[in-house]
Amino acid sequence: MKTKVGIIGAGPAGLMLSHLLQLEGIESIILESRSREDIEGTIRAGVLEQGTIDLLNATGVGERMMREGHVHEGIELQFRNKRHRIDFKELTGGKEIMVYAQHEVIKDLVAARLDAGGQIYFNVSDVSLHQIETDTPKIKFCQEDGRELEEIECDFIAGCDGFHGPSRKAIPDRVKVEKQKVYPFGWLGILADAPPANPELIYSNHERGFALVSTRSPEIQRYYLQVDPNDDIKNWSDDRIWEELHARVDMDGWRLTDGPIIQKNIVSMRSFVCETMRYGRLFLAGDSAHIVPPTGAKGLNLAVADIQVLAKGITEFYKEGKEETLEHYSDICLRRVWKAQRFSNWMTTMLHRDFEHSSFEHGIQLAELEYVTSSRAAMTSLAENYVGLPLEIQSNAEKLQI
Amino acid sequence: MKTKVGIIGAGPAGLMLSHLLQLEGIESIILESRSREDIEGTIRAGVLEQGTIDLLNATGVGERMMREGHVHEGIELQFRNKRHRIDFKELTGGKEIMVYAQHEVIKDLVAARLDAGGQIYFNVSDVSLHQIETDTPKIKFCQEDGRELEEIECDFIAGCDGFHGPSRKAIPDRVKVEKQKVYPFGWLGILADAPPANPELIYSNHERGFALVSTRSPEIQRYYLQVDPNDDIKNWSDDRIWEELHARVDMDGWRLTDGPIIQKNIVSMRSFVCETMRYGRLFLAGDSAHIVPPTGAKGLNLAVADIQVLAKGITEFYKEGKEETLEHYSDICLRRVWKAQRFSNWMTTMLHRDFEHSSFEHGIQLAELEYVTSSRAAMTSLAENYVGLPLEIQSNAEKLQI
Repeated sequence: MKTKVGIIGAGPAGLMLSHLLQLEGIESIILESRSREDIEGTIRAGVLEQGTIDLLNATGVGERMMREGHVHEGIELQFRNKRHRIDFKELTGGKEIMVYAQHEVIKDLVAARLDAGGQIYFNVSDVSLHQIETDTPKIKFCQEDGRELEEIECDFIAGCDGFHGPSRKAIPDRVKVEKQKVYPFGWLGILADAPPANPELIYSNHERGFALVSTRSPEIQRYYLQVDPNDDIKNWSDDRIWEELHARVDMDGWRLTDGPIIQKNIVSMRSFVCETMRYGRLFLAGDSAHIVPPTGAKGLNLAVADIQVLAKGITEFYKEGKEETLEHYSDICLRRVWKAQRFSNWMTTMLHRDFEHSSFEHGIQLAELEYVTSSRAAMTSLAENYVGLPLEIQSNAEKLQI
Repeated sequence: MKTKVGIIGAGPAGLMLSHLLQLEGIESIILESRSREDIEGTIRAGVLEQGTIDLLNATGVGERMMREGHVHEGIELQFRNKRHRIDFKELTGGKEIMVYAQHEVIKDLVAARLDAGGQIYFNVSDVSLHQIETDTPKIKFCQEDGRELEEIECDFIAGCDGFHGPSRKAIPDRVKVEKQKVYPFGWLGILADAPPANPELIYSNHERGFALVSTRSPEIQRYYLQVDPNDDIKNWSDDRIWEELHARVDMDGWRLTDGPIIQKNIVSMRSFVCETMRYGRLFLAGDSAHIVPPTGAKGLNLAVADIQVLAKGITEFYKEGKEETLEHYSDICLRRVWKAQRFSNWMTTMLHRDFEHSSFEHGIQLAELEYVTSSRAAMTSLAENYVGLPLEIQSNAEKLQI
């Protein structure tokens, strides 16, 4: 097989890249190790930044999101038994966020790709990368029912295969540095068959630990509890989960409505950055290059930002013979990635109860919350990061906004 | 002896309290364990917030400060071999800071107190506090040349005697909680006989450690280097100090001017808060209740803020028979103290190189600097804290600004 861009992974990054390239008339092939049903059914993040909303709409894949997603104009921070609203729309000059689950974005993008005749191979195995230092890189893989390795010859490989995929591993250790932080927190997430508790997300810093009141739809709610990342979900009966949620988020005159819990699991939290995000003709995007803790709702949005830089670079390569954006791809993306890491780390540190903290450090955490909810400058800082900092695609002399 | 308010300590807090009370016609006596020459000659902090400047001017002790002090409208943050200016005046709607050394403030306040017939006993010893739970507290002490203990009967005691003084220790352990953080950084400070290097302060985050370019007068400059807090000043020859300063702050086309070093020392850094700041008729103010690392330039200003609350409370007590502000003194002050602790801790963490940090944590530190110098909201947040957050004297229902 032959194509211009070989894309490993059909997550938001890989699908969006293939979609943007197709709008420019540039051919690509996507390889995905899981089934279509699996990727379309796996529950992940669910908050889209203004820039992500705009991109989906501008490229014709935002219709169902606009119909079924929920626009939020702010969030609430709860601590010391009080709630404080952060009004994103007012603080950022009109920007909002959209609560629309990642697997719904994936459904929309898969449908758009297949409708446009795009090639996605699901259930592939034994994916490996070759000759990435050359102008003719290759991907080898095995099709769903195949016994033999097949080969894709391409001009570029996009490594959109997540934290555990083969792409990052294909970059030699001598040219990359991996930076990481593992948090002493886990998130116990549930889906509950219950009416929405609140029009906006509630981030609660409580003495017993962090809790997040989120939503999925008018019928299904998404709630999270800070737990020990090594805890076993078997230790958490539905009754115990509800008891803990009530303890951490209920207030005088306001009580979460219980309902049947239809899914529950515990995930650990880490921050991770791979420097570099590019090696030869291989470009990493999304979780293959960086992981953020979920507190800042940045994961999917960072992946989409990477892809916009990469799609611009590849388009310039074919249309104008320019390689400048591709050459600076890693620097351009990492500048934004580190700012998102900063924000995610700050939100995580401010909101979770670290039981190893001294009483002074706990005092600083509460002072941070008091300050953030009392200073317009600090609220604006939180808001501009949450709705997404401007996407700057800057190469040497030029500084472009897209 | 008898007075209304017995004040322990002739630092900025004690002197300013006595000064404010005298303007309201309320009598006080100050006890100080050191000599007048000593307190007027000890080099300490040197940055006054807008609110402190305003208070000194409004109460008639700002004349020399306005003549000899230096107004700064911003600071510069240096990292990755670039400088970024934070324009306080523009970001805060006109607020500024004044570089005017703490011992100059002390000289002005001592002179004003003595001119007005105020009583200050220098070189006292054996100071102890008694009956502070009652309405008739007492201070016992020994005068400079005295052999016997004397006694001051008063209505209130103000503990303005610094971190090591007897006042905080007089509050029983069962009613107070002390919260603290000791930093792995020390500041090697020098006074140099050299011309000013820069019109404004330069805070430099460098791979070799933090450095601060400050000033004292047109002839004398004040520079600081981050060092190990357990290092011995004997290990630092003048040549070594200049070499290190050049390495950390020089840039292309800009070089610090050397000069004879006329003083050098190393101080350690800590954050400390005593909760409560009040017990019975004893009120702690300034360093006796809280210590901040010097990075945020908050020490003297926090002391002056405490004093404004205390002077208001005592004045209301005598003039209106109201005890509300005195009753809430600790809560009112601690709200501001914790915000200043947050800011000082943040500035310290952002600017010093922690050699125990992981590469991820170092990445977050640089991302913080990149963000702070690129976002107007973040710059405004730094600026509003540096020039001083509004002083809110809030008791139950009322919320006053003074």
